[in-house]
Formats: sequence, structure tokens, C-alpha cells
Amino acid sequence: MNPYIEILRPTNALMAFIAVLLMAIIGHTYNYEIILGSLCVFIATGSGNTINDYYDYEIDRINAPNRPIPSGKIELKRALYYSLILFLVSIILGFIISLENGIVVILCTILMIIYAYDLKQRCFIGNLCVAILTGLTFVFGGLITKDVNLGFILGFFAFLMTLSREIIKDIEDIEGDKKEDAHTLPIIYGTKKAVMLAVILNIITCILSPLLYYYNIFSIVYLIIIIIADIIFVYSAYLAVQNQSKESMHKISKYMKIGMLIAFVSFAMGAL
Amino acid sequence: MNPYIEILRPTNALMAFIAVLLMAIIGHTYNYEIILGSLCVFIATGSGNTINDYYDYEIDRINAPNRPIPSGKIELKRALYYSLILFLVSIILGFIISLENGIVVILCTILMIIYAYDLKQRCFIGNLCVAILTGLTFVFGGLITKDVNLGFILGFFAFLMTLSREIIKDIEDIEGDKKEDAHTLPIIYGTKKAVMLAVILNIITCILSPLLYYYNIFSIVYLIIIIIADIIFVYSAYLAVQNQSKESMHKISKYMKIGMLIAFVSFAMGAL
Repeated sequence: MNPYIEILRPTNALMAFIAVLLMAIIGHTYNYEIILGSLCVFIATGSGNTINDYYDYEIDRINAPNRPIPSGKIELKRALYYSLILFLVSIILGFIISLENGIVVILCTILMIIYAYDLKQRCFIGNLCVAILTGLTFVFGGLITKDVNLGFILGFFAFLMTLSREIIKDIEDIEGDKKEDAHTLPIIYGTKKAVMLAVILNIITCILSPLLYYYNIFSIVYLIIIIIADIIFVYSAYLAVQNQSKESMHKISKYMKIGMLIAFVSFAMGAL
Repeated sequence: MNPYIEILRPTNALMAFIAVLLMAIIGHTYNYEIILGSLCVFIATGSGNTINDYYDYEIDRINAPNRPIPSGKIELKRALYYSLILFLVSIILGFIISLENGIVVILCTILMIIYAYDLKQRCFIGNLCVAILTGLTFVFGGLITKDVNLGFILGFFAFLMTLSREIIKDIEDIEGDKKEDAHTLPIIYGTKKAVMLAVILNIITCILSPLLYYYNIFSIVYLIIIIIADIIFVYSAYLAVQNQSKESMHKISKYMKIGMLIAFVSFAMGAL
């Protein structure tokens, strides 16, 4: 893959793209602003990933020597300029769509830069930052489809699910992170407390999920599909309490990803 | 004053109350939800201040022995329960207004608790947290007046102004903070860099301010009044670059408070 594409982590950036498309499907909005918006979040996420690689240069030399910067395919300074230019492009795209969308992109840019520079090393705050960014993608989409309230509500659910999953991923990576002297939640407060928090977040998500039907936001179809996602989340929580091994956490993280995808499908189907 | 009122820091909590009222004036919305909402943010801010005092117990014994907890007027554990009950009340009030308002209160509660527990000691992240909370108050108000886009835009301006002012306040308090071994922005990166960031934020706010007229959000009246606020902000920035003494910063912090109030007046007048 071209290193300038690879450094964007396109699969990851595509998730943000899909979040905006999901809002378009839910809002039955298919216009050029959706295309601009999807492009905008793709570029913004990509530039966030790039500046992350820029700051991780030292660590990646040992842990991920094949990444574009440590492998020498992209010069360090050049990666920084590349990401700053992409940030600027995404901000401009945001303001072309609307003042509000531009503001969201600026906020996300600030968060992504301080995340890459500092926050990701901070216990829990790094997780919180990733979850907020995920939630803001839905708000961004809602601003385009003129249903920012809905974007906000779905963003909140995405926030809860992402936060829980990020904690699970930290538990999975605990051995490697300890060697790097990282300060993740399970390292500082222990695996047990971290699992407890992830499980509580999972349960809160499940308990709140019927509200989207109750408040007449989605149809009964939503309720039927979301129950499947809820069962997966409760089962993941059960597994997490039972077994905190790396393999178990890896499996749970995968289950939760599937649960999130099903939740997104339920949003789309419930809006038809 | 009754210690259970005093610990809420009512003057500070009143500012959140006023932000919601401001949104009501701008949106010409005068209903019972505005009353509920104003009460809700007052209680939420008060409980945030209470849990802050709970975690600051040790420091306050030396620095602020007359505060309700160190003076023995409120028992430590009792202060914690008091704040948790108030948090719960504010969350319930939020959900009575709407699902979205309830979500905002939950988000703010999470932020306020981790701020009190940990974030306020973190260089810049603490400032960022206060600024985000201030911004969210406007979003909360906008959700009630059914103009969340506007709440979001004004919240962003409040965010920028608050962030700049919080940094100035950190520079003002640098000597005292150093003795407490606090890690504020000016302590870690030096006064010069901190001033630079505050000034940049100030200038960005001024440059962006005409957009609210340009995008037809407010009338020409807004533009005339906001110029006064902009002049105060630019003058504050000029003073900050010239003189970084405690007295100078104290004066600038005051000027910026006045500038913010004028900006809020311009929002209200521009919407008439």
C-alpha cells in the first residue's frame, strides 16, 4: 500500500465514514453534503492517525518497525506536515458544509492532537477521548441531516459502547503495556476494577437502549434487533467477569464489535 | 450562610443558571422546561463544586480552613453523599425535560467527577474540562429551546473564551500553585508559552465572532456590540503579552470576564 495511504489507517478512518453514512440512511438524507461530510471525517480521522504515528515514532521503532515512519517510507517531519495539511483540509470541508460542522471538526482536531501528544498515556482519559471522538462523528452526521438531536443521542450510545470496549482492549493489552510502562486503567487500578467499569458501562447501555423505542425515536423493528445486541453485550459482560485472560478479552472485544455493528443496523432498520 | 448552600458555591452555580436563561431569551422560549432546566444546571454545578470540595479536603485544611468541610460544618462522608444525591436529582430533572437533556447531564456528571478526582491536576486538561462544561451548558439550553445548533455554536464561543480565561487564571495563581506542586500549564511549559496560547485563543474568538452575523444567526445589533467585546479581548491579549505579573493577570482575568458578559449581551440583543 502507498505509505501515505497506509499511515491514515484507512480501515479505521472508514469507520468514521460509515458513521456519517449511517446518519444519512437514518435521516433519509442523500445530498452532496453527505458526500463532503463522509470525506471530511475520513480525512480528519486519517490525519489524527498520522499525527499519532508522528508522536509514536520512538515506540514504533521497536514495536511496529514496518509502519510508514519507522520504516523510513515517510520522513518524520514530512508526516507532521502531511497531517497538519490534512487537518486543514478537513476543517475547510467542515466549514463548507456549515458553521456547526466546521466547529465540530475544530473540536475533534484539538482532541486528536492532544490525544496523540499526551492524553493516550493518561489512565482512562485516553479511553474517554476516543469515545468522545466516536460520539462526535454521529453529532457531525446529525448536523448534516438536520437532526442533530438524533445524532447526539446515537453518539451517546456509541460513546458508551466505545468506552467500554476501549477498557476491554486495555485489559487485553495489559502485558505489553506494562513493559512499555504505560498507565492504562487496568495497570493503575487493577484488572478487576477495570472489568467492573467496562461491565457497568455495558449494562447501562443495555438498560438505556429501549428508551430509543420508548421515546418514539425508532420503530418496533429497532427494539427487536437491539435485543440481539443487548444479549451479546450482557454475554460479553458475563465472560469478562468470569475470565480476564488475554484470549478471553480478545474474544470479548470481538463480540462487542459485533454487538456495536448490530446496534448500528438496528438504528438504520428502526428508522425505515 | 447555611453550609449546605455555601458548599454549592451558589454564585458560581448561578452562572450556569444564567447561561440557560440566556438561551431562553435568545430563543424566545419561556416555558416550565426552562425553569426545570435552570434548576437542573444549578444543582448539577453545585454538586460538582461539592464533590470538588470533597476531594480537596486535605488541601483546603491548610489553604481554605473556613470552607464547610475543613471547618467541620459538614462531615466529609456526608458531603460525598450530599453531592451524589444532588447529581442524581439533576440527572432525573434532565430526563424529565428530554432524553437529550438527560444525556447531557450524565456526560457533565462524568466530567465533573473525574475533574474533581483527577483532571484538575492535569496540565491543560483541567482547563479544557472546565471550558467543555461551560460550552455544554449552552448546548443543554439549546436542547430546551429546540435550537441545539445555536446552543452548540454559542457553546463553542463560550468554550474558547473560558479556555483562554482559565489559562490566564493559572498564570495569575502560578506562585501559590508552585508551592502546592500543582501541574498547571504555565508551571509545566512556562508563562510565556501559556500566555501565547491564551492570546491565540483570544484572537481566534475575535476573528470568528463576525461569523455569527455573516451566517445570519444574529442581526447587525450583535455585530455592533460584539466589537466592544472584541476590543476588550484584543486589549487583554495586548496586556498579557506586555506584563505577566500576578496583578496584571488578575486585571486581565477581570477584563475578560467583562468581555464575556458583553458577548453574552450581544447574543441576547442580536436575537431580538
